[in-house]
Amino acid sequence: MSKDEFTQHISRQFNEELEEVRSHLLTMGGLVEKQVIEAVDALVNADSAKAMDVLSVEKKINAMELAIDEECTRIIALRQPAASDLRLLVAATKVNIDLERVGDEASKVAKMSIELAEDSVLPKGYVEVRHIGAHVCSMLRDALDAFARSDVDAAMDVVREDSIVDMEYESAMRQLATFMMEDPRYITRVLNIMWSLRSLERIGDHARNIAEQVIYLVRGKDVRHRSLNELSD
Amino acid sequence: MSKDEFTQHISRQFNEELEEVRSHLLTMGGLVEKQVIEAVDALVNADSAKAMDVLSVEKKINAMELAIDEECTRIIALRQPAASDLRLLVAATKVNIDLERVGDEASKVAKMSIELAEDSVLPKGYVEVRHIGAHVCSMLRDALDAFARSDVDAAMDVVREDSIVDMEYESAMRQLATFMMEDPRYITRVLNIMWSLRSLERIGDHARNIAEQVIYLVRGKDVRHRSLNELSD
Repeated sequence: MSKDEFTQHISRQFNEELEEVRSHLLTMGGLVEKQVIEAVDALVNADSAKAMDVLSVEKKINAMELAIDEECTRIIALRQPAASDLRLLVAATKVNIDLERVGDEASKVAKMSIELAEDSVLPKGYVEVRHIGAHVCSMLRDALDAFARSDVDAAMDVVREDSIVDMEYESAMRQLATFMMEDPRYITRVLNIMWSLRSLERIGDHARNIAEQVIYLVRGKDVRHRSLNELSD
Repeated sequence: MSKDEFTQHISRQFNEELEEVRSHLLTMGGLVEKQVIEAVDALVNADSAKAMDVLSVEKKINAMELAIDEECTRIIALRQPAASDLRLLVAATKVNIDLERVGDEASKVAKMSIELAEDSVLPKGYVEVRHIGAHVCSMLRDALDAFARSDVDAAMDVVREDSIVDMEYESAMRQLATFMMEDPRYITRVLNIMWSLRSLERIGDHARNIAEQVIYLVRGKDVRHRSLNELSD
C-alpha cells in the first residue's frame, strides 16, 4: 500500500467512524422519542403497564449514552481530528447528554402516570399534556434531522418552536392552578400533571440545545444564550 | 533550544493550560454558588433588589461557559492530548455545562422570589428552602473541591448527599401540598415555593453530575447510572 493509499484508507475509516457516531445518536434519538410518546400515552390513558415498559427501557438508554460517549472520546484520542471534525465530536458528546436527559424526563412522566392511574381518571390538563407532548416530540425529531443533515434553517425552526412550547406551558400551568383553587380536592392529582408538563417543557429545552449545537457546528460559532433576533443575523 | 528542552517547554505550557481550565471552572463555580446563596436569600427575605442582582449576573455566567468551552476545544485541537489529559478536558466540558445550568436554576429561584415578594410574606416552606439551599450549595462546593483535588472519596460523599437532598425535597413537597389543601387561598404562592425547591433539588443533581465526573476521571471508568452500592466496589 502506498503512503497516499494509506492516508486515504485512514481518512475513509475516520469518516465511517464519524458516520457511525451520527447513526448511533439517531438510533438513540428515535428510542427516547418513542419513550416520550409512550409515557404521554400511559399518562393520558391511565395505562400503568405501558408506563412500566417505559421505565424498563431506561437502563438501555443509559447504556447507549455511555457507549456513545466512550466512542466519541476514543475517536478524538485515536484520530486527533482537526477543527471541524473535532467540533462534530464535541457536539455529539453534548447531544448525547441531552438525549439521555430526555429519557430521564420521559421516565419521570411514566412514574407520574403510575401515580395518576391509581385514582379515577381526571381529564383536566390531559389535552395540554397530549398537545405539548406531541409538540416536543416533533421538535426532538426535527432537531435530530437537522443534526443528521447539518441543516441550520431547520435547527432555527426548532429554536423558534421552543418559545411557543414555553408559552403553551405557561398557559397550561395557569389553567391548572385555577382548577386547583376551584377544587382543592384534586390538588395532589393536578400537581402530578403539573410535574409531567414540566418534564415535557424541559424536553423542549433539550431539543433546543440540540438544535443550537447544529447551528454551532455549521456556522462554527456558539449561539447558545442568544436571542432569536441575534440568531437570524 | 534542544529538542528535549523544546518538548519540556511544550509539556509545561500544556500543564499550565490544563491548570487554567481547572482554575476558570473553579472561579465560575464560586460565582454560581454565590448566585444560589443570593437567590435563596432574596426569596426568604422577599428582597427583590437582590433577586435583580442575581438576574444581572446571568449573562456573565453564560459568557464564562462559552469561554471555557472554547478553551477546552482549542486545547484538544492544538495539543491532541493523550488518554488521561483528554479525559480531563472532556470532563471539564461537562462540568462547565452543569455549572451553567446551576446558574440557570439560581435565576429561576430569583424570578420566583420577585413574584413572591409582591405579596405579603408567607413563611410556609421557607425553612425548607433555606435548608435545602444551604445543603445543595455545600454539595456544589464539595464537588468542585473534589474536582480540584481529584478526590474520589469526597466525590462519593457528594453522590451520597444527593440522595439525602432528594428525600428532604420529597418531604418538603408533601408538606407544601398538604398546606395547599388546608388553605387553597395560598395555592399560587405555594406553587412558586415548590418551583423554587424543584430548582434547588436540580442543583443537587448537577453537583452529583460533577462528582461523578471526578470519579470517572480518577478511576477511568464511567460511573453514571450506577447505584451507590455499585460505586463503593
